[in-house]
Amino acid sequence: MVFDKVKEECGVFGFFDNDGFDVARMTYYGLYALQHRGQESCGIAVNDDGVILLHKGMGLVNEVFDSENIQELKGSIAVGHVLYSSSKFQREDCQPLVSRYIKGTLTIALNGNLTNAEELRRKLEKEGAVFQSSSNAEIIMHLAARARTKTHSIEDAMLKVLEKLEGAFSLVIMSPRKLIGIRDPKGFRPLCLGKLKNSYVIASETAALDVIRADFVRDIQPGEMVVISKEGLKSIKYADDPNISHCVFEYIYFARPDSVIDGVSVYQARVQMGKLLAKAHPVDADIVVGVPDSGLSFAVGYAQASGIPYEEGLIKNRYTGRTFIKPTQNEREISVSIKLNVLKNNIKGKRVILIDDSIVRGTTCANLIKLFRDAGATQIHMRVASPPFLWPCYFGTDIPSRNELIAVKYSIDEICQKIGADSLGYLPLDDIKKIGLRQDQGYCDACFSGKYSISKLPKDSSIPSKTQEEIYGNSRRNFKDFKIIKAYT
Amino acid sequence: MVFDKVKEECGVFGFFDNDGFDVARMTYYGLYALQHRGQESCGIAVNDDGVILLHKGMGLVNEVFDSENIQELKGSIAVGHVLYSSSKFQREDCQPLVSRYIKGTLTIALNGNLTNAEELRRKLEKEGAVFQSSSNAEIIMHLAARARTKTHSIEDAMLKVLEKLEGAFSLVIMSPRKLIGIRDPKGFRPLCLGKLKNSYVIASETAALDVIRADFVRDIQPGEMVVISKEGLKSIKYADDPNISHCVFEYIYFARPDSVIDGVSVYQARVQMGKLLAKAHPVDADIVVGVPDSGLSFAVGYAQASGIPYEEGLIKNRYTGRTFIKPTQNEREISVSIKLNVLKNNIKGKRVILIDDSIVRGTTCANLIKLFRDAGATQIHMRVASPPFLWPCYFGTDIPSRNELIAVKYSIDEICQKIGADSLGYLPLDDIKKIGLRQDQGYCDACFSGKYSISKLPKDSSIPSKTQEEIYGNSRRNFKDFKIIKAYT
Amino acid sequence: MVFDKVKEECGVFGFFDNDGFDVARMTYYGLYALQHRGQESCGIAVNDDGVILLHKGMGLVNEVFDSENIQELKGSIAVGHVLYSSSKFQREDCQPLVSRYIKGTLTIALNGNLTNAEELRRKLEKEGAVFQSSSNAEIIMHLAARARTKTHSIEDAMLKVLEKLEGAFSLVIMSPRKLIGIRDPKGFRPLCLGKLKNSYVIASETAALDVIRADFVRDIQPGEMVVISKEGLKSIKYADDPNISHCVFEYIYFARPDSVIDGVSVYQARVQMGKLLAKAHPVDADIVVGVPDSGLSFAVGYAQASGIPYEEGLIKNRYTGRTFIKPTQNEREISVSIKLNVLKNNIKGKRVILIDDSIVRGTTCANLIKLFRDAGATQIHMRVASPPFLWPCYFGTDIPSRNELIAVKYSIDEICQKIGADSLGYLPLDDIKKIGLRQDQGYCDACFSGKYSISKLPKDSSIPSKTQEEIYGNSRRNFKDFKIIKAYT
Amino acid sequence: MVFDKVKEECGVFGFFDNDGFDVARMTYYGLYALQHRGQESCGIAVNDDGVILLHKGMGLVNEVFDSENIQELKGSIAVGHVLYSSSKFQREDCQPLVSRYIKGTLTIALNGNLTNAEELRRKLEKEGAVFQSSSNAEIIMHLAARARTKTHSIEDAMLKVLEKLEGAFSLVIMSPRKLIGIRDPKGFRPLCLGKLKNSYVIASETAALDVIRADFVRDIQPGEMVVISKEGLKSIKYADDPNISHCVFEYIYFARPDSVIDGVSVYQARVQMGKLLAKAHPVDADIVVGVPDSGLSFAVGYAQASGIPYEEGLIKNRYTGRTFIKPTQNEREISVSIKLNVLKNNIKGKRVILIDDSIVRGTTCANLIKLFRDAGATQIHMRVASPPFLWPCYFGTDIPSRNELIAVKYSIDEICQKIGADSLGYLPLDDIKKIGLRQDQGYCDACFSGKYSISKLPKDSSIPSKTQEEIYGNSRRNFKDFKIIKAYT
Repeated sequence: MVFDKVKEECGVFGFFDNDGFDVARMTYYGLYALQHRGQESCGIAVNDDGVILLHKGMGLVNEVFDSENIQELKGSIAVGHVLYSSSKFQREDCQPLVSRYIKGTLTIALNGNLTNAEELRRKLEKEGAVFQSSSNAEIIMHLAARARTKTHSIEDAMLKVLEKLEGAFSLVIMSPRKLIGIRDPKGFRPLCLGKLKNSYVIASETAALDVIRADFVRDIQPGEMVVISKEGLKSIKYADDPNISHCVFEYIYFARPDSVIDGVSVYQARVQMGKLLAKAHPVDADIVVGVPDSGLSFAVGYAQASGIPYEEGLIKNRYTGRTFIKPTQNEREISVSIKLNVLKNNIKGKRVILIDDSIVRGTTCANLIKLFRDAGATQIHMRVASPPFLWPCYFGTDIPSRNELIAVKYSIDEICQKIGADSLGYLPLDDIKKIGLRQDQGYCDACFSGKYSISKLPKDSSIPSKTQEEIYGNSRRNFKDFKIIKAYT
Repeated sequence: MVFDKVKEECGVFGFFDNDGFDVARMTYYGLYALQHRGQESCGIAVNDDGVILLHKGMGLVNEVFDSENIQELKGSIAVGHVLYSSSKFQREDCQPLVSRYIKGTLTIALNGNLTNAEELRRKLEKEGAVFQSSSNAEIIMHLAARARTKTHSIEDAMLKVLEKLEGAFSLVIMSPRKLIGIRDPKGFRPLCLGKLKNSYVIASETAALDVIRADFVRDIQPGEMVVISKEGLKSIKYADDPNISHCVFEYIYFARPDSVIDGVSVYQARVQMGKLLAKAHPVDADIVVGVPDSGLSFAVGYAQASGIPYEEGLIKNRYTGRTFIKPTQNEREISVSIKLNVLKNNIKGKRVILIDDSIVRGTTCANLIKLFRDAGATQIHMRVASPPFLWPCYFGTDIPSRNELIAVKYSIDEICQKIGADSLGYLPLDDIKKIGLRQDQGYCDACFSGKYSISKLPKDSSIPSKTQEEIYGNSRRNFKDFKIIKAYT
Repeated sequence: MVFDKVKEECGVFGFFDNDGFDVARMTYYGLYALQHRGQESCGIAVNDDGVILLHKGMGLVNEVFDSENIQELKGSIAVGHVLYSSSKFQREDCQPLVSRYIKGTLTIALNGNLTNAEELRRKLEKEGAVFQSSSNAEIIMHLAARARTKTHSIEDAMLKVLEKLEGAFSLVIMSPRKLIGIRDPKGFRPLCLGKLKNSYVIASETAALDVIRADFVRDIQPGEMVVISKEGLKSIKYADDPNISHCVFEYIYFARPDSVIDGVSVYQARVQMGKLLAKAHPVDADIVVGVPDSGLSFAVGYAQASGIPYEEGLIKNRYTGRTFIKPTQNEREISVSIKLNVLKNNIKGKRVILIDDSIVRGTTCANLIKLFRDAGATQIHMRVASPPFLWPCYFGTDIPSRNELIAVKYSIDEICQKIGADSLGYLPLDDIKKIGLRQDQGYCDACFSGKYSISKLPKDSSIPSKTQEEIYGNSRRNFKDFKIIKAYT
Repeated sequence: MVFDKVKEECGVFGFFDNDGFDVARMTYYGLYALQHRGQESCGIAVNDDGVILLHKGMGLVNEVFDSENIQELKGSIAVGHVLYSSSKFQREDCQPLVSRYIKGTLTIALNGNLTNAEELRRKLEKEGAVFQSSSNAEIIMHLAARARTKTHSIEDAMLKVLEKLEGAFSLVIMSPRKLIGIRDPKGFRPLCLGKLKNSYVIASETAALDVIRADFVRDIQPGEMVVISKEGLKSIKYADDPNISHCVFEYIYFARPDSVIDGVSVYQARVQMGKLLAKAHPVDADIVVGVPDSGLSFAVGYAQASGIPYEEGLIKNRYTGRTFIKPTQNEREISVSIKLNVLKNNIKGKRVILIDDSIVRGTTCANLIKLFRDAGATQIHMRVASPPFLWPCYFGTDIPSRNELIAVKYSIDEICQKIGADSLGYLPLDDIKKIGLRQDQGYCDACFSGKYSISKLPKDSSIPSKTQEEIYGNSRRNFKDFKIIKAYT
């Protein structure tokens, strides 16, 4: 992929029908609305009176599903999943994961990452467990199959399982008669509840409710399990963690702008970030331009706060597909211009404030700035609507390894020079708390701050489990001024 | 297709290499940038020292072409084509059209429509011509093969052919040694010339030059033939028609906003139309919202002129594909919301000015307005950045038949009621001349005005070849006030 | 499928490289030679120094694999599998099955059927096992993961597992460093060992050795485990069952004629059956005709023994593919003639002896005889190179349920009448022992005789676990004369 | 392709419905039965009351057609085509060719080759004709469109066209209301007429009639045009050429053994050739083995005439597909054994007579003989059921260029040595007349004899117009039994 972005790893969806809806179609539309959360594979499992029908495969929702196979997925409960994945991905990792165990069938769709996955896996293997995928969902499946409870209820079994899980997980689970939504105690990944007539919907984002015209009921709470059956909806608060850790990068990049997560509109959070960015890094210029699609909302905010006119400056080709023939090394400049083209007449002779959500490796950014220079922009002031990426994420996103992160290797000034901008400003770390998140709830900004809300991080990690402060000391001050000394040795 | 839009029918591209470029790849990128002009089929023909290699097929550019087949298209001149088409389309109609005739091979790519096609076809058939497609390009091919000139030059043959063609045509033609670009005498469809190092490029829009980083040289003039060979570039002005007829709908909807056509930036024309619309139909409201993608630029202009804030109000799903499973009749509301979702938090309690480029049948418009009402908008003022569609286009676009056009059947007030808006305003017909078009050049607005610059329209047309004035008399006055009496029975 | 044949369920293949061969290609060729044993799905797993690379999918070997994916399967040990399957088949059942457990990875390919599968599965589920497929191979995988042995060797673990398995199984297993071949104690399904230079090959049939030009070493013995590692080959005789039960239907229909199984050439066994059939059911006729492909060898034998000339009488279309559009109900006659066409000139006016390997439902047979009548044959004497199908097979083949078997429902005379033959003769049950099988080894003819060599058959079976004698008493006598009273109520 | 065979170039089929048959399905079945005549592309055109619906594409009949596209081809007349083609093939060459001309639509399917194609093409081009393919059918189409007759009947136009055509052609043509079958005056390629209830069928071979259970009516005669309309069938004998030139290679290899061509059963002709071969080249041996599939019938005849037992010795893998991964150079031996495996037990220690239809380059033959040696055959006597290939064919087959033909380059003794046989015998040229062809009709054996029945052969031929004697001198002596008279003028 040409564009260097951090990748979300999954989207989940569940539908419990009480009205005669076509649950597979509803799930199809829902996954389609969640496609931005994962483009590698997708799947839908439906429950036809205890019999599970499953269709999953590599590709986009509208590549994997067609009228014919959707038709065959008849049932009254459905679970869907979209997945982005790393290069190690194998077909077996596609979700939902369906299995048969002593109490019947179990279907699992997971968004997140268990920080104690390897530990759990090793323990299970010692007890004779067999793994056919590298998915964390399979770990949860084994734990569920081994949970011994007095009752035969799936929720009791899952409560046993939840005692063992650490990390980030938003789960949609289907037993022969129930649809269950679970959010981890810290609430890293979003998960919400909706209602369509008398039927229930669970989804990663509210946009998936909107698309099927379902009403938003509420966010599923951190540490909450919601159990939906023919008897109705039951809520179990299985944990009460004081350190709520909503992922701030959902607001910055992952989520759709039209979603509302934990009470905050993603779009409005972005406009607000743009405004904060304008205050933190004002500059005299002629126009404010956002990088489509995610950068546009920030630009709206920046323009509003600065009074500098918002203009469209980059046009995105709407027909990008995965099978696109990649430009060769010699055609490197084309690699950006096939996707984003500068509106020359709008740019020529102008001092441009260019706004993007984040800088990861810096390559795309440099190419874009060159496009603007070639188009005749006299100055280009890069503004980034997030603090510099410095730390790994263990909670279900795909940040490249630290030695690829430009902010780890270079100071702000150096980055500014590398990407060829006239000035560069990142959103101050402290400003994140001003984007509208509820004051009584916390958030996770570990990828920027290095402050992880979970103490026991994966052992084999390349990063020692210390806070940024411990490691960098004074550099923190530098960070404040957006001049970071080389961070890692 | 859910969304009722007028469809462009083609995009053309040509590349004459003098530097060792991979002409097929360059053409691939170019077609990719022109994909919005036709999504039904595409093709590339390359000239490998007189031998033509051709690959074409149904589908998008990145579906029809892959690394393997592009690899095989080695040569030094290339012609590419993207095509939108009606239901009567057959595989044989895909372009470029390649044939062998007495003087060697001839490759033709056409954007446009001959108004005397049937007449020419019938005459050719009488002379023994055989047609294997329904494409107008095949007519031109037959005429070229029959043209008898003293010289053996393709340009002389084409000059003979051009005497017979009427209507709209932007042509890219490849002979064994030459690449030729031709624009009809009235200049309906755009065609421009670019240069990449020492190589020449011909394309429907400048955005296709940008994508391969070629420099824009100039528009090919109405009535001009440009002949590129190893000897360089030669221009022949074969006609000097006083009635230039640049299609205004290119500015309104067809072309990419980042293209510059006949000296006018499409984006800036749209912003200007938005401004004109604000002046013509002001209204007190809280926010201005454009319908993505084409409506956004108008909204920027409307906001600037009115002082009412521009806001994003609709989020488009970026993953729409052609294989999408269509919502059933019962799921009609979903048909819009899967593509466009309202930013509820931004809309709730607001008076919204909603701006789109045009209204064809009115169905999408009505669905969108319902979405806004459901999202809590208190008022919705629809503004349309073009005059009402009233007349057929004979020049290469696909406007539905008149009995499907809402403006033909209903008055402005009735339309306003049908789509459920609180008010409705169209761009005044006279304002089109204020969007920046060169004063010395004319334009075609026949689809709005009924004033055709060509006297002899197709005989079998459903519309008598009279101007609107002759037919409707007083209704013209009503039209001025945007209250049109039902126009056609 | 039009043609009613009993289906084999699997073919297995393994390759242990000591010479630098491309193990995936060798396995590809091997599976290709075993394609007749399973056409539903196939897969290859290779061991690249402990890392398992797997590619499997639905379809034929040359549909699932291409140069590109074969290329990626680099390694030094490989396991391959082809599978035929019933309608309940799901993608998860494709083999080889690969998993990670406490001792590393385990790859399993199975041909056969465990008669105690349900019992084992239920026991494993009670212990917390999770099943993701309906494959017996997954049961073996769980047992292996739970086997606790003092040594860490895979062969010791498998010996523990083998104590629990009942039924028919020929296994190819790959551990991080070893390739293992195992045949069940009774030797139901074939499995042989080959050598190519210094490399080892394990395959279901010798034809798979021939295709890669490997030398046949020997059959793997019933109750034998062969362990191949860098240290060479080690044989473990883990069981010594006196009741060897080689499947006779391998000789009659399943295996390729060019394979040699347990010391007997399949082709020669078939010629011999043809001769025995000629002695048992002589008839005065003009020509002997076999039904391609399997019936041809029997016809050669029948002709040799009877002195009646062997002639080709049916020509098979070589281009049958799975995507063939099936004839409609009205086109029933076409359903046979598209695949087999009568050589009219050779048949007209002749008394024909028509030989096929077996009769299952009788439908194809009746259609064929009609074809011959229409072609002008004056008499048609049907000869079947196996005894009547009367009993279910629990050992890895797919005989239809008893109520579909024509021989269960009707007497020989009735069958003769139903299929429209002038006479009908089956191979006498006793003649099977004369086809060349080693006298010191037994065979399984339970599908004909009802005598099962395994006492504990699946409980949920539709057939009580008694021998035919116990149930039918006198009918056995009738059977001798090929007049069977209706057998099952 | 591994196997070096001469390739047939086409099969044609036509159906005129008078009973309500599904004409597309009937044509599908017919083409399926003719698949051996062309595997590169196929197509079906149906006439729905004057509107032509066409579906054609690259691939086998069951790859190009599926239930869905066959469903759409509704009509009352159909024309089908299968095509084998050389490397220069392009998609545009697929047939049937459909076009519109002054008198309506014309659909053409051709089997054969015009020897004056280049001359006709050049003449047409001079008159302004445009060619979009390299197909001879397009030449015929142009001639038809230019034919001026007093009546408006298609048959009169075709009679005009036929005056100009030279060479081999069996045509099926569809006008808006008629189905027409035409065979060239010398009758090179087969074409027959059948009847299914009241409907008419035209096909390249009788096997295509059999498959749809149609009755064979008669062969269409050399120089005959058969016109089928609602008025019934009309025959026009447009030429009466004394030099009938039925292609003998249809009997030797091209046609299905179950077809009857010009009164001679292909199977019986082959058995007869086997007998003649036995007489011409007797040898003491243990068994006679044919190379599947085509060699088997010859082997049956050889065995009958010699009294040496016929045995199966080679087993063909039934699952060969076009996508098969080709063996690498190092795996050359595998290239034959994946398709044909020797029945070792049947061959070991035996003196084998191995029979194939022809030897083209000799490579496959040599590989096969090596397989037999490796399997333990003590002697291998190669017998070839046709004379040596020495001359090009201009009549619609694809014989490799002369410098690839082993018989052109080497003497019989040298060939015997090259392929590694103990002896080698070809069918004597004179014996061809004994295979049952009607005495009053001639045949074409030019590929063996160099005696062409058409005087004016293509000028641009790779063969100088000298006699073989002039060219080969002494090598002639080696052709001891194969005396070739002056071949070319």
